[in-house]
Amino acid sequence: TQNYRITLLPGDGIGPEIMAVAVDVLKVVGKQFDLKFEFQEALIGGAAIDATGEPLPSATLETCRNSDAVLLAAIGGYKWDSLPSNLRPEAGLLGLRAGLGLFANLRPAKILPQLIDASTLKREVVEGVDIMVVRELTGGIYFGKPKGIFATETGEKRGVNTMVYTESEIERIGRVAFEAAKKRGRKLCSVDKANVLEVSQLWRDRITQLSTEYPDIELSHLYVDNAAMQLVRAPKQFDTIVTGNLFGDILSDAAAMLTGSIGMLPSASLGASGPGVFEPVHGSAPDIAGLDKANPLAQVLSAAMMLRYGLDQPKAADHIEQAVLQVLEQGDRTGDIISPGKNLLGCRAMGDALILA
Amino acid sequence: TQNYRITLLPGDGIGPEIMAVAVDVLKVVGKQFDLKFEFQEALIGGAAIDATGEPLPSATLETCRNSDAVLLAAIGGYKWDSLPSNLRPEAGLLGLRAGLGLFANLRPAKILPQLIDASTLKREVVEGVDIMVVRELTGGIYFGKPKGIFATETGEKRGVNTMVYTESEIERIGRVAFEAAKKRGRKLCSVDKANVLEVSQLWRDRITQLSTEYPDIELSHLYVDNAAMQLVRAPKQFDTIVTGNLFGDILSDAAAMLTGSIGMLPSASLGASGPGVFEPVHGSAPDIAGLDKANPLAQVLSAAMMLRYGLDQPKAADHIEQAVLQVLEQGDRTGDIISPGKNLLGCRAMGDALILA
Ligand SMILES: CC(C)[C@H](C(=O)O)[C@@H](O)C(=O)O
Ligand SMILES: CC(C)[C@H](C(=O)O)[C@@H](O)C(=O)O
Repeated sequence: TQNYRITLLPGDGIGPEIMAVAVDVLKVVGKQFDLKFEFQEALIGGAAIDATGEPLPSATLETCRNSDAVLLAAIGGYKWDSLPSNLRPEAGLLGLRAGLGLFANLRPAKILPQLIDASTLKREVVEGVDIMVVRELTGGIYFGKPKGIFATETGEKRGVNTMVYTESEIERIGRVAFEAAKKRGRKLCSVDKANVLEVSQLWRDRITQLSTEYPDIELSHLYVDNAAMQLVRAPKQFDTIVTGNLFGDILSDAAAMLTGSIGMLPSASLGASGPGVFEPVHGSAPDIAGLDKANPLAQVLSAAMMLRYGLDQPKAADHIEQAVLQVLEQGDRTGDIISPGKNLLGCRAMGDALILA
Repeated sequence: TQNYRITLLPGDGIGPEIMAVAVDVLKVVGKQFDLKFEFQEALIGGAAIDATGEPLPSATLETCRNSDAVLLAAIGGYKWDSLPSNLRPEAGLLGLRAGLGLFANLRPAKILPQLIDASTLKREVVEGVDIMVVRELTGGIYFGKPKGIFATETGEKRGVNTMVYTESEIERIGRVAFEAAKKRGRKLCSVDKANVLEVSQLWRDRITQLSTEYPDIELSHLYVDNAAMQLVRAPKQFDTIVTGNLFGDILSDAAAMLTGSIGMLPSASLGASGPGVFEPVHGSAPDIAGLDKANPLAQVLSAAMMLRYGLDQPKAADHIEQAVLQVLEQGDRTGDIISPGKNLLGCRAMGDALILA
């Protein structure tokens, strides 16, 4: 038996409901694959603010550090929106990324044949889309200094943030991306704004240098504005995309939306060593929290990513992913992905269906 | 008779061809509306680099300053891609924006019923889309300092750019946007990343304050990642969007691509006073340059924007826009927008059709 300590961060809104489903699924899969999970729950986001005044209590970070992987659900909600930014739920998420050194964020955007009609794009444009966005997650303008709001000499305010990348930061995310591309379609597109930004010129140069170590990967470069266009125009041209923190935030969301079913999309955030964090791409959906209406599939697929990328248990991961495809195949749908003729299930019922699948 | 001095900047690639069509159209419209245009041509971009070594010769900036409006076609091409960035065609464009103080960039993205099938999005999703992106154009990370590539203490390189906005910069672009929204659907969506960036918090605060002066405009705020999603998910929700230089670059291109026919989209760049610059959103398309295949309609619609926003001649602008709709209605198409059963025209023939329309 393989033992794993998993930290659960259910967070806010629909977080606890979808987390409960993922835990049930993990337990069943654990039995089948002889994996034993020891789950510890910790506070983050709004839930942590309410309980402790801080979005990321140090006890939470400690618990995460002492585990083999972290499964996160969702954070945030209207309730905490007016707090100062360093005390908001989002600050907890950024603190977790920095605290665990999670520099690589993997965001797959894959069209599932069963849900292709949910896309706002034409079937022939999105059929077969399977993109992996590799986003740098602990650098760039999210963390660069100086940052803040300062007074100018004339007395008006001036807001400042700094986009910074060093060569070694670019190199390490570049390696993750080339390796990811190797296991996929062997095409990597690096996205920057090198025609305007010096930080992007350095990005492009370093990625280009690195590509000499990966002669079997076809590297291309796009400016971020063009990349946003191409995702809408012809998304099938993409296999793996690598980009910085801010561009990755924007493009991975655009790519996710191409699928039309953001309730289906997981993500993984990984460091050089230590536990990774696995979480759905969607938010905490406070408007449907507690109503048993949420779609738990992105959370369940995040658990699968945890097994694959965090715990090196690809077979258990495959098994979960197959179960998700099977419930979709048999017509089970939550409200966000329902279409005529399908079976509308609540969050828990979807979990039960998965376990039987 | 009203006299106008117009600087023409044909630039590179298909620039000269499409500019020739726009000039022909302006001459005809001028006769009809009793406007006299005095055209002066000047060098920019690759053409200027080849002739003078600089992407924006000072004579060009001088000529522009001494005119009532500037009509620009397109710049850039593979040929100049390997030059150092301060000597590349793009540097000419950035220099022109800064030199003329063009802080407001208006980018309409409107679906034309005749071309709706060119969109990669489903008809019901894009039918009626009519978005105006108001992008700040002389500030933000495009111009903020410090910027450059520096050596760190450990000897590796570090790329830096700075996103900066002052309250007055935010206010002046905000006013342009509120005024634009007033003439349109009275809805303004401000896009930022205020959950992470301080510069965006200042942006959001200042825009919110300003909204008290425009009680009849419905103001909303979106984070840039969500905005990129919403443009794909439900673009009809947008009327006018206001955002900073970098986010505007990305989102206006995404919005443009929703229409499926980027060869149709004009833009206007305006300052507090002095001449504006009017140009198509598309690029210089070096691969079809000189082949009489380019679509001149975005250039012609840019001339219409010049008449409307630069010269305050809305009737002449309407007239041009009507002519464009009419040629589309009668089935005339260039190669980029051709579909079965329509008439394929070259660039010049499309110009002739417009003049007869
Ligand atoms: C909530 C926010 C801070 C976060 C980000 O911008 O990284 C989110 O948008 C994401 O992509 O995970
Ligand atoms: C060519 C480039 C410098 C420019 C920009 O980024 O502003 C272009 O993308 C645009 O949007 O006009």
